[in-house]
Amino acid sequence: MTQLQIGLYGLGRMGGNMAKRLARGGVTVYAYNRSFEVAEKLAAGDDNVRACRSLEEVVASLSAPRVLWLMLPSGPATEAAILQAAALLEPGDILVDGANGYYKEAIARADQLAGQGIRFVDVGVSGGIWGLDNGYCLMAGGDEAALAAVIPFLKLLAPAPDRGWLHAGPVGSGHFTKMVHNGIEYGMMQAFAEGFALMQAKTEFELDLAKIAELWRHSSVVRSWLLDLTADFLKADQKLVDIAPVVADSGEGRWTALEAVEQGVPTPVMSLALMMRFASQGKNDYAARMLAMMRKGFGGHAVQGKGE
Amino acid sequence: MTQLQIGLYGLGRMGGNMAKRLARGGVTVYAYNRSFEVAEKLAAGDDNVRACRSLEEVVASLSAPRVLWLMLPSGPATEAAILQAAALLEPGDILVDGANGYYKEAIARADQLAGQGIRFVDVGVSGGIWGLDNGYCLMAGGDEAALAAVIPFLKLLAPAPDRGWLHAGPVGSGHFTKMVHNGIEYGMMQAFAEGFALMQAKTEFELDLAKIAELWRHSSVVRSWLLDLTADFLKADQKLVDIAPVVADSGEGRWTALEAVEQGVPTPVMSLALMMRFASQGKNDYAARMLAMMRKGFGGHAVQGKGE
Amino acid sequence: MTQLQIGLYGLGRMGGNMAKRLARGGVTVYAYNRSFEVAEKLAAGDDNVRACRSLEEVVASLSAPRVLWLMLPSGPATEAAILQAAALLEPGDILVDGANGYYKEAIARADQLAGQGIRFVDVGVSGGIWGLDNGYCLMAGGDEAALAAVIPFLKLLAPAPDRGWLHAGPVGSGHFTKMVHNGIEYGMMQAFAEGFALMQAKTEFELDLAKIAELWRHSSVVRSWLLDLTADFLKADQKLVDIAPVVADSGEGRWTALEAVEQGVPTPVMSLALMMRFASQGKNDYAARMLAMMRKGFGGHAVQGKGE
Amino acid sequence: MTQLQIGLYGLGRMGGNMAKRLARGGVTVYAYNRSFEVAEKLAAGDDNVRACRSLEEVVASLSAPRVLWLMLPSGPATEAAILQAAALLEPGDILVDGANGYYKEAIARADQLAGQGIRFVDVGVSGGIWGLDNGYCLMAGGDEAALAAVIPFLKLLAPAPDRGWLHAGPVGSGHFTKMVHNGIEYGMMQAFAEGFALMQAKTEFELDLAKIAELWRHSSVVRSWLLDLTADFLKADQKLVDIAPVVADSGEGRWTALEAVEQGVPTPVMSLALMMRFASQGKNDYAARMLAMMRKGFGGHAVQGKGE
Repeated sequence: MTQLQIGLYGLGRMGGNMAKRLARGGVTVYAYNRSFEVAEKLAAGDDNVRACRSLEEVVASLSAPRVLWLMLPSGPATEAAILQAAALLEPGDILVDGANGYYKEAIARADQLAGQGIRFVDVGVSGGIWGLDNGYCLMAGGDEAALAAVIPFLKLLAPAPDRGWLHAGPVGSGHFTKMVHNGIEYGMMQAFAEGFALMQAKTEFELDLAKIAELWRHSSVVRSWLLDLTADFLKADQKLVDIAPVVADSGEGRWTALEAVEQGVPTPVMSLALMMRFASQGKNDYAARMLAMMRKGFGGHAVQGKGE
Repeated sequence: MTQLQIGLYGLGRMGGNMAKRLARGGVTVYAYNRSFEVAEKLAAGDDNVRACRSLEEVVASLSAPRVLWLMLPSGPATEAAILQAAALLEPGDILVDGANGYYKEAIARADQLAGQGIRFVDVGVSGGIWGLDNGYCLMAGGDEAALAAVIPFLKLLAPAPDRGWLHAGPVGSGHFTKMVHNGIEYGMMQAFAEGFALMQAKTEFELDLAKIAELWRHSSVVRSWLLDLTADFLKADQKLVDIAPVVADSGEGRWTALEAVEQGVPTPVMSLALMMRFASQGKNDYAARMLAMMRKGFGGHAVQGKGE
Repeated sequence: MTQLQIGLYGLGRMGGNMAKRLARGGVTVYAYNRSFEVAEKLAAGDDNVRACRSLEEVVASLSAPRVLWLMLPSGPATEAAILQAAALLEPGDILVDGANGYYKEAIARADQLAGQGIRFVDVGVSGGIWGLDNGYCLMAGGDEAALAAVIPFLKLLAPAPDRGWLHAGPVGSGHFTKMVHNGIEYGMMQAFAEGFALMQAKTEFELDLAKIAELWRHSSVVRSWLLDLTADFLKADQKLVDIAPVVADSGEGRWTALEAVEQGVPTPVMSLALMMRFASQGKNDYAARMLAMMRKGFGGHAVQGKGE
Repeated sequence: MTQLQIGLYGLGRMGGNMAKRLARGGVTVYAYNRSFEVAEKLAAGDDNVRACRSLEEVVASLSAPRVLWLMLPSGPATEAAILQAAALLEPGDILVDGANGYYKEAIARADQLAGQGIRFVDVGVSGGIWGLDNGYCLMAGGDEAALAAVIPFLKLLAPAPDRGWLHAGPVGSGHFTKMVHNGIEYGMMQAFAEGFALMQAKTEFELDLAKIAELWRHSSVVRSWLLDLTADFLKADQKLVDIAPVVADSGEGRWTALEAVEQGVPTPVMSLALMMRFASQGKNDYAARMLAMMRKGFGGHAVQGKGE
């Protein structure tokens, strides 16, 4: 068997660990990052990783047909990288977007690249910072021929060669499936958060939330990896008074909500989980001010001034 | 026709105005309030209002069968007043609770008072601070006999004798109907608040929200009294930056939400309108902190410290 | 003053009535519809309406600068009409889309037409089948110059020249404002529907929903045009057993939900009102089947067969 | 060590399996059920289970201080059994309610029984039909002394003596914690159902939902026991066309929703998960009919007749 080789552009939390896991699996990884130091550091720790100074260098280092894997933030960064890559790659080469991305854009990109004979594969990657050791969960979209070149890497990134990866369907289906996965994740997280909030508010019972989270890990219906993580951080601190009550949201949650509306499928849990994050970001404030004023208008109810 | 007379206990924003409207209609109102000054001031401005120094005085001033109308905050204040009144009233007298109250309690109270021969009527009153001039909307629950004694007052409190009041059904149905009314009100208010928030966030259009509210008052599908009030306050200020984004909630909204769960009827709009008020009160903060920690747990996402 | 004249394409429920109202106001309306009979019938009843057999005829009949107003279903029908109109109109002419439409498309169309010197105005029209007699509520987007030519018609369509119409802002802002209006409408409708459903389920009170709807029209906080309509149909039938529990949804409701997600503004009431319509259309069935199977999976709970 | 013995009343899906697991652990189980055959059958299969013909027989068989464990449907059945047991038990005996129950009732019961010197313990039991083999997850509420007598049984019912059971706090906290657990469960289930519904509706991707469920079990963020069960039933059938789209709800889900309202804590996900079950039961139909009629009222939109 020839030595497997891959180009990897984007060495952040996800990309860096994926490079390591591939290298551990024997793959030669031509690693590139906007900041060269990151690539260098990675290469210093692993013989199979070669730090490149440019995308040109990555492409020149790979034998055709090349597999170039992008792990960049969705949006402008990924867009720019695809344009740059398209100018360097040759017909028959394969471009993989393994970051979170909107599946509609994956379909559009694949169409554009097909004109040049470049194949596009969209891969959704779950597993977070734990993937390096546990393996990742990977859902790939693309045609059979393109997947054939990518599957050897999926097998190494997954927990085991025979599980944790899937050729989900045509181009777009990888990012689509990952999008839905994250929508579910939003709902599950919110369900746990609401439950623990109810228990925290029930002060008369003086419940030990860390012990309850740990308890539920064993034989309960809600046992899950998210609960494992929750048990873990509650052990250290269950008051959370030093944590700001602000929750970021990402493209995936929003795209799932858009999809539900476009399909006409009710997803109250996913959509509300997203909206509670919006509210935590202060995006409900104008509506709340309106309500306070309406109450004053019909009932003469007092309105608090700012900062009261 | 004999002169109509009534006892009125509770001279707050609602009760005080109702006393005035009844007095304007020719009713002699024996008015009592925890603080005597309030009753005195009311009586000073209106010949038909007599300020009483005690509930005993109210009851002694009325001819049997007496109608004693309570306008006190629901809960302990109303509970105490009912007990006190029950000790003073005689069989055949009628006790009216015209404040917001949980309909289940109205039913329980009516049962207790029936043992003494005292009739209980629950009246839901809508119209807020505008009722004095516009008349109130009144929904009454109780048996026919009790209602017969109360209807003359309903006719005076309503905008006109033939509309704006209703004998809704048996005891409890007055407060029940008012409860549902307020549940709807919560939903409508939230709908408006969300809509204006979306327009306020669309900065590129530089929409004039005051003009839009005024516009919609004419021939639009959403024209309504709540919109009239909204147009009114937006004229003065549409930035609302000095208003705290905090919205109080009252018993009515919560009871409606409980009722929906007990009946097994889906009321997503009413229930969410209530929950967004909870969130505005900071009651979502623990859940948000949990979510921030979970995101850190699986994705290594940064968590903001308090006050960042 | 010269005689006002306008071209109107689309004579359905909304367009037909708007043609009549403009004609009543003294405007010469060159009316065109896919089916000529509809235009003919309209012209037969009104001297100021001229039935045209083609869009070419409409354009040829109007003096420059022409105002051509479209009242067609959003999507392909409107798209096709705009292309057709663009080929016929001349620089300086004004094309108005008065149907419901996605504001993003209005902006895109205006850009395209600007290249030809044709001005585009998007108008949101509320008022439904009652607009003919009551006047319409109109919110227009476009530049000052284009609006100047359109405002005379807005004044006639509105309930009165000085109210019920607004130049909301730049192109797109008319449809945007109408979109938000409809989102609010969805929320208000759902709030009423939930409230009446709670009262209908409370069989022990034997509430007369028609009387309650009528009652609330007078001095209550929820008084509104939607309540007027509700009181009207409940008078005829409050059981509604012959009405299928299926509620259609339209573009406006969905666009509002998409906008909320894109802006990151929480709109739980608007979004849930939309999703309950989806559920009424059977779009929740697969999710419900999944839940039934999960319950069986962990708890051994029986699952109903289809049609049981 | 003396032989452990317990009385167990209620041998349904949960109770029967718990009897078996305790018997396997060496406990002598005096088993009683409304239908004697069920107890007999259980005893026939297990030497440690003794079928009793009456609650009197159970109580007479146990040495003081007795532990009598109820596994009956919440509500009237449990109420009656507690009254019956209270008449038979002696001071120092311990009555355990291990079924799902409203925590407020547990507190009330404990108060009543305390007057007789009988100790009450409320235990929430999770694990469903899988608990027999995997062990149960148990959360107990009660005072230390009562718990001391119950913990030996918790250790046997749990997956292992040192995990899967917890003395959560005072009386009521066991049922409270289980209630919240089930609220979370509702939210998680709904999140999965929504996600799979979105994928099922995306027909152009021809996704294999069984393979995706299986995939996500490995290293994804949503991996969980509910997903394991889902993967299991989807393997056999992912169309689900023979399953009625009707989802039952139980007390636990409703009590959680009530608790949230009473505490003023927003739980949109839990509450909406419950309401979607209501909707699946046809409880949204009246509201939907109202909406269809309103749309007709303002827009002239056609209304479907029943069965169209």
